[in-house]
Amino acid sequence: MAENPEKIKKVSIIVSRGSLDGIYPGLIMANGARMEGIDVNLFFTFFGLYAILKKYNNSIKIATVGNPAMRVPDAKGLPLPTIVGILPGMSAFATWMMKKEMDKIDIPPIPEMLAMIDDAGGNIYACKATVDMFHLTKDDFIPQVKRVLTVGEFYELSAGAQIIFT
Amino acid sequence: MAENPEKIKKVSIIVSRGSLDGIYPGLIMANGARMEGIDVNLFFTFFGLYAILKKYNNSIKIATVGNPAMRVPDAKGLPLPTIVGILPGMSAFATWMMKKEMDKIDIPPIPEMLAMIDDAGGNIYACKATVDMFHLTKDDFIPQVKRVLTVGEFYELSAGAQIIFT
Amino acid sequence: MAENPEKIKKVSIIVSRGSLDGIYPGLIMANGARMEGIDVNLFFTFFGLYAILKKYNNSIKIATVGNPAMRVPDAKGLPLPTIVGILPGMSAFATWMMKKEMDKIDIPPIPEMLAMIDDAGGNIYACKATVDMFHLTKDDFIPQVKRVLTVGEFYELSAGAQIIFT
Repeated sequence: MAENPEKIKKVSIIVSRGSLDGIYPGLIMANGARMEGIDVNLFFTFFGLYAILKKYNNSIKIATVGNPAMRVPDAKGLPLPTIVGILPGMSAFATWMMKKEMDKIDIPPIPEMLAMIDDAGGNIYACKATVDMFHLTKDDFIPQVKRVLTVGEFYELSAGAQIIFT
Repeated sequence: MAENPEKIKKVSIIVSRGSLDGIYPGLIMANGARMEGIDVNLFFTFFGLYAILKKYNNSIKIATVGNPAMRVPDAKGLPLPTIVGILPGMSAFATWMMKKEMDKIDIPPIPEMLAMIDDAGGNIYACKATVDMFHLTKDDFIPQVKRVLTVGEFYELSAGAQIIFT
Repeated sequence: MAENPEKIKKVSIIVSRGSLDGIYPGLIMANGARMEGIDVNLFFTFFGLYAILKKYNNSIKIATVGNPAMRVPDAKGLPLPTIVGILPGMSAFATWMMKKEMDKIDIPPIPEMLAMIDDAGGNIYACKATVDMFHLTKDDFIPQVKRVLTVGEFYELSAGAQIIFT
């Protein structure tokens, strides 16, 4: 290992998945970076866009179906068989439990978390290709979304940054 | 932030998922990078390998089941309940709609997109461990696949690059 | 491209998914990095935590449901229709087949692979927020887990490293 390795100074975090467990890691890494004084660009693309859509970002669920790791959120409890994931309502139940646990350890809901990152100086962007594909306009997004960016603009903004695709 | 932060000059993009929404982000980032003059290595591993398999890469679908964010591709429409995802045919329907929208904004199908990236000078590789595990040979892949690489070779090729795992 | 691009010297690999196909890529990249003399920090978060839980990490399955790329592990065989993924037992069957194939090419089960990475000098960490959310303690983890880290500590440890989120 190099002596005096260079500290992380800037991150470009991409959020591409639309489930609760797909969105939170990127938000937590963005928030943690700002708390360390690291520059942050948060870029939402594909189904990750749901996190910044005014109409949807407060009702996002965990991906239980197709997630064989999904057991009761308390890993010490009895694991539920995978098949439970396909019962209607199961995703809502697991989501409710997880949100309750997140609340206890002070992880705020998605809209509040985005406002916090924005307040702390993080920059929030939406991906142009996805915006066009889903026929969205600036009005569909939460006010913290700064701009709609092309992939080229994303790379330019990422000069000197670690790119983290979540 | 450092003044004059260093521009992104090279990216090593790994595609590891096998669904349409798992494959496209890597391809779009690879294509966007080449358009900016950024060097590109595209590395396909695990189920991401389906993207470069001649027999399969034109029939890849969206992951509707287990994707609670999946609603009608036009996010302004009425969201479909999660349970719809498990109905047979739903994935095919959502895939058809998404492909139609992608076509409108000039995002080509996977095989054409890979040919485009190759033409633009991007390098396409397959992961040796996955190739061995699935008993594949060079003949199973599209002609644009340059070589089958070990993880060690991947790291060597990534000297000076940002590694982006999608 | 710069002449003499800088070799990858250190990687910080994050494992965030809890399925077999979500966990292995990070482990294979960590192991491959150590074999090349690259420094490795492996950080487990969200459902990725299952990989280091003593009680669960030997019974992790493939995500068949919701994974439209999932066909018979041998890609040359007949593809199974997506709907098969929701049949109980299918995930177990696909997992069994994949494990058999991995064994043939000398990819060890998750617990052995983690011991190997630890023996080779890789550092294994758990994410504090997830540990708190799931009410876990150090005792729930395999002995190779060095410490529970905050996101801030993760960034500090990642100085000079490529961050790879899998």
